[in-house]
Amino acid sequence: MLAEDFSDWKPVSPSKTAIATINPIRGLLDSGVAKQTGKESSEPVINMSLGDPTIFGNFKTHPCVIEAVEKQLKSYHSNGYAPSSGNPQAREAIAKAYSDPDNGVIFHPQDVILASGCSGAVEMSIVSLCSEGDNILLPKPGFPLYKTNAESRGVNYKLYNLLAEKQWEADLPHLESLIDDKTKAILINNPSNPCGSNWSKEHVAAIIDICAKHRIPLISDEIYNGIVFPGVKFTSAASVSKNVPVLTLGGIAKRYLVPGWRVGWVTLHDPLNVLVNLRPYINNLTAIINGPNTLIQKSLPDILSGDFNEEFSAHLNSGLETNAKIIVDRASAIKGLTPIVPEAAMYIMILIDPEIFDSGIRNSVDFFNSLMWEEHVEVLPGDIFDFPNSFRVVITPPPEKLIEAFDRIKLFCERHYKS
Amino acid sequence: MLAEDFSDWKPVSPSKTAIATINPIRGLLDSGVAKQTGKESSEPVINMSLGDPTIFGNFKTHPCVIEAVEKQLKSYHSNGYAPSSGNPQAREAIAKAYSDPDNGVIFHPQDVILASGCSGAVEMSIVSLCSEGDNILLPKPGFPLYKTNAESRGVNYKLYNLLAEKQWEADLPHLESLIDDKTKAILINNPSNPCGSNWSKEHVAAIIDICAKHRIPLISDEIYNGIVFPGVKFTSAASVSKNVPVLTLGGIAKRYLVPGWRVGWVTLHDPLNVLVNLRPYINNLTAIINGPNTLIQKSLPDILSGDFNEEFSAHLNSGLETNAKIIVDRASAIKGLTPIVPEAAMYIMILIDPEIFDSGIRNSVDFFNSLMWEEHVEVLPGDIFDFPNSFRVVITPPPEKLIEAFDRIKLFCERHYKS
Ligand SMILES: Cc1ncc(COP(=O)(O)O)c(C=O)c1O
Ligand SMILES: Cc1ncc(COP(=O)(O)O)c(C=O)c1O
Repeated sequence: MLAEDFSDWKPVSPSKTAIATINPIRGLLDSGVAKQTGKESSEPVINMSLGDPTIFGNFKTHPCVIEAVEKQLKSYHSNGYAPSSGNPQAREAIAKAYSDPDNGVIFHPQDVILASGCSGAVEMSIVSLCSEGDNILLPKPGFPLYKTNAESRGVNYKLYNLLAEKQWEADLPHLESLIDDKTKAILINNPSNPCGSNWSKEHVAAIIDICAKHRIPLISDEIYNGIVFPGVKFTSAASVSKNVPVLTLGGIAKRYLVPGWRVGWVTLHDPLNVLVNLRPYINNLTAIINGPNTLIQKSLPDILSGDFNEEFSAHLNSGLETNAKIIVDRASAIKGLTPIVPEAAMYIMILIDPEIFDSGIRNSVDFFNSLMWEEHVEVLPGDIFDFPNSFRVVITPPPEKLIEAFDRIKLFCERHYKS
Repeated sequence: MLAEDFSDWKPVSPSKTAIATINPIRGLLDSGVAKQTGKESSEPVINMSLGDPTIFGNFKTHPCVIEAVEKQLKSYHSNGYAPSSGNPQAREAIAKAYSDPDNGVIFHPQDVILASGCSGAVEMSIVSLCSEGDNILLPKPGFPLYKTNAESRGVNYKLYNLLAEKQWEADLPHLESLIDDKTKAILINNPSNPCGSNWSKEHVAAIIDICAKHRIPLISDEIYNGIVFPGVKFTSAASVSKNVPVLTLGGIAKRYLVPGWRVGWVTLHDPLNVLVNLRPYINNLTAIINGPNTLIQKSLPDILSGDFNEEFSAHLNSGLETNAKIIVDRASAIKGLTPIVPEAAMYIMILIDPEIFDSGIRNSVDFFNSLMWEEHVEVLPGDIFDFPNSFRVVITPPPEKLIEAFDRIKLFCERHYKS
């Protein structure tokens, strides 16, 4: 028998969904130029690009968090499947920890759906509310995963402006002008990645009012809930919503410094009971991957209610503030760079004056690539967040690394000013 | 100011995708009748419905598996994000453990993509290959999650018959007759849930030949790889494919008795290199939820290569065989029931003779509901797997529970024979 000839077997085409699922960070990094280091410097790369506070070892989760998981691990009782919406005790613990009775927010366990990280919560909220051809309003600058989810599902998105000159408040008239009859959700992210901003209660309320006026549910990504610098007050969207249904997205990734553990959630605040038809379908969606890791789920009661929380949080937040100050001071002293002072989360946005640099640095992608090549300092260009002429710096590296990085950034800028 | 009137705020409609994401088990259990127990019996419910081997405590993971995770947990070095396709060492460990050089199967780390359980691998494989309007061939009886994924994404499915009278081999002419120019993948599940069958090398090769003839990639769900009764030989689809691209779905859920840990994977075997265009898109899809738990990912090298594996596996498999024998013996002795002898996985299918029972038991859903109501024994009706006139029993409960359950099933049947 002759060997069959398979030369007609053409490469398999990826599905439309696969092709539409674009991760802009990947796109940038795969462009080939990015992330290459030149020989000008022999220094190791300083990574200020990845929103992972654990990289340098200076920010660590609390031993009580580790012990909580160890307890489950050694019990041999947390290895089985949980219901796909989540372990009942985990749902109860989250409901309890995030209820705010003084402001009329009472979550019950059935208002909580566990997800595979806050990323899973982003997917669940967008996919449950928006069909192909619908649209969702997203912040600009904003976390790129929102767009990735929308594009992956054929959902259109419209970007509303955040105003650097107003501490990254939303441009409310602009936001409202984008609403049409296909708008199925407004998404906010407070505190913000990439801005490091924290909105006032009044501003959150103003957005809720727009949702109420147009009868549109709000998705509020609050993964940085609790991560505000000392003295700053965080306002959750649910706490100011008397009518608007709010799907709040949360998780343990950032607050407990365990982003790899992949446990997040959606909580439903629904004063008018207009999410009644949505609830069973959200639960159905969870059946696709059957929830996050049960060891961590079952540790949540111990983690969320542990005595260590207050001190741990205070320590984290003051460490972040110290780091932010270092960056603000250093960056302000560099001609052509304008840091927007953060007060929350783990990031700072720094504006680039495009007029001041030579023709090698025409935009923030050039800035990013050349900075990496010449100085081995890795940031993220604002383009990733739909905000050109800026770059985002993660503020979690240790102070000495930050200082070193900004010394290098300064040298870099000096080398590239227009003569 | 008058309080605004929100009575016009209609319930929010779930998205088309949410509505299309149907979990048949949920559907059944939510029907209201199911899972209710009557007062006829005061015995506790015996659960033989959930494919979770950890429920009764008789099957436990190995202490070495727990230690592997404990090591990562205590290191404080496994809490950060992994690349969304998976931790490099985990990918390497899987590639090594599942390569089969004697049969020409060599996986490299980049051929392995981590997923949130084998469920995540099911989603990734179907979504990457099939667009809305395409179709996929699925086994009948078969694991319902395949359909759920297809329906959720607007992918059509066609069910090919497995033949109870031929140890659940696929009806190959039937399978082949279903192929059309919109068929983007054939999915097999070997060893099978719900059948407990294990296909011969020849049968696996025959399916590969059909794929080759029609130039269609194979998705092979091998989550029960290694779970075959003593003396039975498992054949992975990749090992017999010289040309056909095979996306093998795997995970640690069943083999290591840790279904709650939610770590699975897809491996790509691609002798003709026709998946070349697919690979980057599969990687993009992983960005949506950013991979499974890193503590477990980083434990995989220790788990997969641990010395305990052989003995542990042998112990598990002989325990399963013992249990299967108990069920086969008991069920064979009940008029109207015909167990199909399993030799793998954790399930047995039992055929129901519909002619023999009274008018209260017209079909297997009646059988399921009444058995639960009257005898507090929970199985799953074959309808869940598109195979009416049968029920599936999980074989992992301890022998004494199985004996007790089948004593009750016998009483139940005797009560319901046509007079
Ligand atoms: C605003 C925002 N939302 C969601 C996420 C995803 O969080 P997780 O790691 O829990 O999936 C991130 C992670 O950086 C984020 O910055
Ligand atoms: C055939 C089959 N595939 C996939 C899965 C899902 O496995 P996991 O729990 O790893 O998501 C199961 C679980 O029962 C199964 O039986």
